[in-house]
Amino acid sequence: MAGSSFGRLFRISTWGESHGEGLGVVIDGCPAGIPLTEEDIAPYMERRRPNGGAFSTARNEADRVRILSGVFEGRTTGTPISLMLLNTDQRSRDYSNIMDIYRPGHADFGYDAKYGFRDYRGGGRSSARETSARVAAGAVAIKLLGMLGIEVSAACTKIGDVDFSDREAAEAYIADLRARQDSVGSTVVCTAKGVPAGLGEPVFDKLDALLAKAIFSIGAVKGLDIGDGAAAALSTGSSNNDPFRMADNRVMAATNHAGGILGGISTGADICMTVYFKPTPSIARPQETVDRFGNETTVEIRGRHDPVVGPRAAVVVECMTGLVLADALLANMTARADRIIDFYR
Amino acid sequence: MAGSSFGRLFRISTWGESHGEGLGVVIDGCPAGIPLTEEDIAPYMERRRPNGGAFSTARNEADRVRILSGVFEGRTTGTPISLMLLNTDQRSRDYSNIMDIYRPGHADFGYDAKYGFRDYRGGGRSSARETSARVAAGAVAIKLLGMLGIEVSAACTKIGDVDFSDREAAEAYIADLRARQDSVGSTVVCTAKGVPAGLGEPVFDKLDALLAKAIFSIGAVKGLDIGDGAAAALSTGSSNNDPFRMADNRVMAATNHAGGILGGISTGADICMTVYFKPTPSIARPQETVDRFGNETTVEIRGRHDPVVGPRAAVVVECMTGLVLADALLANMTARADRIIDFYR
Amino acid sequence: MAGSSFGRLFRISTWGESHGEGLGVVIDGCPAGIPLTEEDIAPYMERRRPNGGAFSTARNEADRVRILSGVFEGRTTGTPISLMLLNTDQRSRDYSNIMDIYRPGHADFGYDAKYGFRDYRGGGRSSARETSARVAAGAVAIKLLGMLGIEVSAACTKIGDVDFSDREAAEAYIADLRARQDSVGSTVVCTAKGVPAGLGEPVFDKLDALLAKAIFSIGAVKGLDIGDGAAAALSTGSSNNDPFRMADNRVMAATNHAGGILGGISTGADICMTVYFKPTPSIARPQETVDRFGNETTVEIRGRHDPVVGPRAAVVVECMTGLVLADALLANMTARADRIIDFYR
Amino acid sequence: MAGSSFGRLFRISTWGESHGEGLGVVIDGCPAGIPLTEEDIAPYMERRRPNGGAFSTARNEADRVRILSGVFEGRTTGTPISLMLLNTDQRSRDYSNIMDIYRPGHADFGYDAKYGFRDYRGGGRSSARETSARVAAGAVAIKLLGMLGIEVSAACTKIGDVDFSDREAAEAYIADLRARQDSVGSTVVCTAKGVPAGLGEPVFDKLDALLAKAIFSIGAVKGLDIGDGAAAALSTGSSNNDPFRMADNRVMAATNHAGGILGGISTGADICMTVYFKPTPSIARPQETVDRFGNETTVEIRGRHDPVVGPRAAVVVECMTGLVLADALLANMTARADRIIDFYR
Repeated sequence: MAGSSFGRLFRISTWGESHGEGLGVVIDGCPAGIPLTEEDIAPYMERRRPNGGAFSTARNEADRVRILSGVFEGRTTGTPISLMLLNTDQRSRDYSNIMDIYRPGHADFGYDAKYGFRDYRGGGRSSARETSARVAAGAVAIKLLGMLGIEVSAACTKIGDVDFSDREAAEAYIADLRARQDSVGSTVVCTAKGVPAGLGEPVFDKLDALLAKAIFSIGAVKGLDIGDGAAAALSTGSSNNDPFRMADNRVMAATNHAGGILGGISTGADICMTVYFKPTPSIARPQETVDRFGNETTVEIRGRHDPVVGPRAAVVVECMTGLVLADALLANMTARADRIIDFYR
Repeated sequence: MAGSSFGRLFRISTWGESHGEGLGVVIDGCPAGIPLTEEDIAPYMERRRPNGGAFSTARNEADRVRILSGVFEGRTTGTPISLMLLNTDQRSRDYSNIMDIYRPGHADFGYDAKYGFRDYRGGGRSSARETSARVAAGAVAIKLLGMLGIEVSAACTKIGDVDFSDREAAEAYIADLRARQDSVGSTVVCTAKGVPAGLGEPVFDKLDALLAKAIFSIGAVKGLDIGDGAAAALSTGSSNNDPFRMADNRVMAATNHAGGILGGISTGADICMTVYFKPTPSIARPQETVDRFGNETTVEIRGRHDPVVGPRAAVVVECMTGLVLADALLANMTARADRIIDFYR
Repeated sequence: MAGSSFGRLFRISTWGESHGEGLGVVIDGCPAGIPLTEEDIAPYMERRRPNGGAFSTARNEADRVRILSGVFEGRTTGTPISLMLLNTDQRSRDYSNIMDIYRPGHADFGYDAKYGFRDYRGGGRSSARETSARVAAGAVAIKLLGMLGIEVSAACTKIGDVDFSDREAAEAYIADLRARQDSVGSTVVCTAKGVPAGLGEPVFDKLDALLAKAIFSIGAVKGLDIGDGAAAALSTGSSNNDPFRMADNRVMAATNHAGGILGGISTGADICMTVYFKPTPSIARPQETVDRFGNETTVEIRGRHDPVVGPRAAVVVECMTGLVLADALLANMTARADRIIDFYR
Repeated sequence: MAGSSFGRLFRISTWGESHGEGLGVVIDGCPAGIPLTEEDIAPYMERRRPNGGAFSTARNEADRVRILSGVFEGRTTGTPISLMLLNTDQRSRDYSNIMDIYRPGHADFGYDAKYGFRDYRGGGRSSARETSARVAAGAVAIKLLGMLGIEVSAACTKIGDVDFSDREAAEAYIADLRARQDSVGSTVVCTAKGVPAGLGEPVFDKLDALLAKAIFSIGAVKGLDIGDGAAAALSTGSSNNDPFRMADNRVMAATNHAGGILGGISTGADICMTVYFKPTPSIARPQETVDRFGNETTVEIRGRHDPVVGPRAAVVVECMTGLVLADALLANMTARADRIIDFYR
């Protein structure tokens, strides 16, 4: 069934495969009047782009986003914003070694089980390239958040157990992995500052539940902590509860073990998340697997693949977070009758 | 906005506060023809019920579920199933010490920020009592899963860092916590066996994304691992990838680091999750906080509160997982044209 | 699949059969702070209630609505409002003449085709009694509309081709129908005054599309006109277009052929609809039909049935209209970035 | 808020304005394995295309649809199908006479009231050109229906009160209208044959409610009859009820006043609808109106405009009907537990 849309009021629908004509996203429900050009989106695409450096592949993806609708005279009109990227670097290559094989750690087998066949070129719909459409849409959401003083940022903090801020150690580690034809997991931390208190709905649409769905919808994510996360399971109430204080005439949490969300509702404190990515499943060394005819075999994944997901995925985490917050901001506007009456006065 | 519903095809809507007349849930989209009585639901309610033992409060909650609609001659009719629980043990008590105060670790401040006021009796809508409605609905979902050979089970494995299977150590630890007027975090593990390959949708409605939303919608959850979870961030591709093998003429994963889901689609391997709960925020020792008038103050949370969430929350995790799987099973039926044609032949 | 919910932000879910324990509705997304008591709802239930008069059955339905959740200290809290009606007048009667038979004009055959069996007591879920839950929810929506100066009203205007305002003629006509063991169709007109311009979304969620779904979801509705409706198909552009004028410093339509909606968006003019109901399908005279075993047979529908739908259905039309407008009012609040910024300032 | 999507399981999202770079639609939830090429869609586009004949404008719209994703090796993959049309005939013209004016019968004023400004070029998002995206998507839905033996067809039957099958009279009538710089309303009849019994959900998602939303979401629709429609309001139960008979070993309605739907569920009889369109609001003769600065003025709508909507809109009605039926077919597959068990066996 339909599963390529995300959000309730600020809603996106992505489309496209890694080796089709292009990819894109339709943003439906974006408020009118936001100044928007393709240049607002480009820096986000640049962060997701493979740059041929130590941590990513040498591919030259076409990440120029075109705005096809929903913007008039430089501002959003309130109608759907269609964003599109062309696939320009589709090398004509030989897929014969993987077209009938289920790559370990990949969705190949699941797709065949579900649909009866699949687009095997570069992962098709399950390719990480799909996330470029999310980044384009997220850039628009983050532009709206910025108008409200909300800042979202995410960064890779660890490659395996190596601190990513120590670039020298990280590059050496990656060079070693490449030599061993292996890959490694990674950790991304995301923070949102300036989020007003009151976002999120009490029960199933808790702000953390919406964020969790957003984050686990990113391929390769296997774990998520909100605030202290799993460490809270080892803590006591007396140390884990964040005392409230007054500061600047506002209610503030003195500490932030909760990560800015209590009972599913934002408290005004920074929203903090830690996201855990598995190692890139595509590795060059031989792996045992089976083919679609039920024969056991081995496979070597050729081609250009990042040895670690986190450095390029950080912007995807940031953008998915931005999309959740923009949606929650809109949803929260209808919570109080007195404010509705003010609005229509 | 509306946020008390969960699911797409097998959809539930819960209602009720801890100290209102009762609580309930409407299940919409449950298939017709499932044998169902109140006795099918009772064992699940019993597991969630406070039993006055070492790990829970002495309250005597009325957890008898009544089926008000949607069942005729012992079978579901395909129309909404309304399940209701009365609130019978509403002690008339004095809320004056908390009605104007924001309890640390609770949703009080967020609710006031969102709605302008709140039902302060026993947490109102944010009370853990709300989860009893989910458990009742989950029992129906799990009944359907059972007809398809799918088994879901969840259990508390750790209280703080104490192994919960060592009951003696766990009880001693809890006794000590009670003496110190404190609480502790906990860990719950959930497994689903017999899930067919192919469940989940490729992009935003990945099976793990749906599970993550379900799990993080449970109050006090702060972390989630799917399969190896956060540990995968420290692993390498060569050890984290699960090789495929043939067994019983089926494609099987030789290991299960992935937890039964690849690219958001179930593989047929067991689905495995680890859920991390924060300590119960209600503790009797004095805590610093503020009131709704902006005064700094201290609060002591009186009343009967479990010192740890996991033992009673395990069945909530199990039931939310059951709801996600039932929904995903229905959603997956429409994936292939050839099977649709077979269906209508 | 789930189909018992209506609305996007102001969302209701109804449950219950005519002869189960009761019926009810959960309102999710109702804004906080609306003064609400059971007395606000009672007058709407009274209008839907059979009154034993010329136009309706002598049944004494229990139409007292109880508020089970979502209201605290006399005001809505923003959390789900559960409303319930008991079924008290369930005469123990003999359904043997209809339990295996497909009543003409009824949903019996469709339900069996869909679900494999059905609750045959009094129509089960397809009973008009289900609409009492909608009326209860609609009364809450209309209370919110009233706070914004919006008035919705609906009335039956015709019974067959007899003007319903001429009560004497109408009563004589109905008496004659009863004597002939027959029923007749009817017409209801609904108007909403004070609706602000700008409600409705441009494409699929046009205000008229949302209204049409609401109205055709009422059993026995077979036709709908918005504004001039079908008559517009015979008109010319020069006479059908409503010229704009200025009045009271506002843009106003000089005429209202459009019924207050252009391009799916409200214009500020009165919203006008005409709703066409088929005759009550339950008639006492013998009708040809078949049973579920494939035998041709005849059936005589016994029991108490209104000979015409419109007089009691008018309030259902009014309430469904109120629900659509409340939902559209909330949805419209997120249309403009400048107003969102104002809201969060 | 988001309002450019339609459908639940077979779901489409359209985007684009009449004078932007192009228009398109994303189909999400289309089952895998349907043979699909651009040639399957072209005939539907051709029927919607202005052909320069008596009944339509001389514009030469670019109605070639490109498939950008979701099809691999000639078959749908189950992932989103992105369809796009370029806007190639965007004459650079002068909008100065309408950019600040509210055209009578158009959405201009409503858009300004809602969004604060609008894309005034050719109607922007409210242009009838948006329906070309629906037609493209509907062609895919109808292809699926065809695989199940379901046929949908719609045709314009009347232009004003002139029978459209009498082409000579119709052409003369239109010529006269053009001479008088006027337009006229029209009537379209739509029929679906071969629809299985059981489609539609009992309460709010009745099949007729879903159809009504679909039809009223088409611009210029002001009235809808299902089956006998408004005429049923004048009929009696004894003549309006369709007796059931056995034929070909199936339950059949002997007559079809109901139009194939009872209680919101399809009966297996032909689904019949009559759709009433208002006259084209764009007429060349001077009309009174106001501008956005509050000045009363007159406007003459220049440019190429069809004098009647129905002839080209018939295929839009057909395609929206196809989309509703495809969605309802998928939704109905989850109604019965026994069939779900069969499916997963």
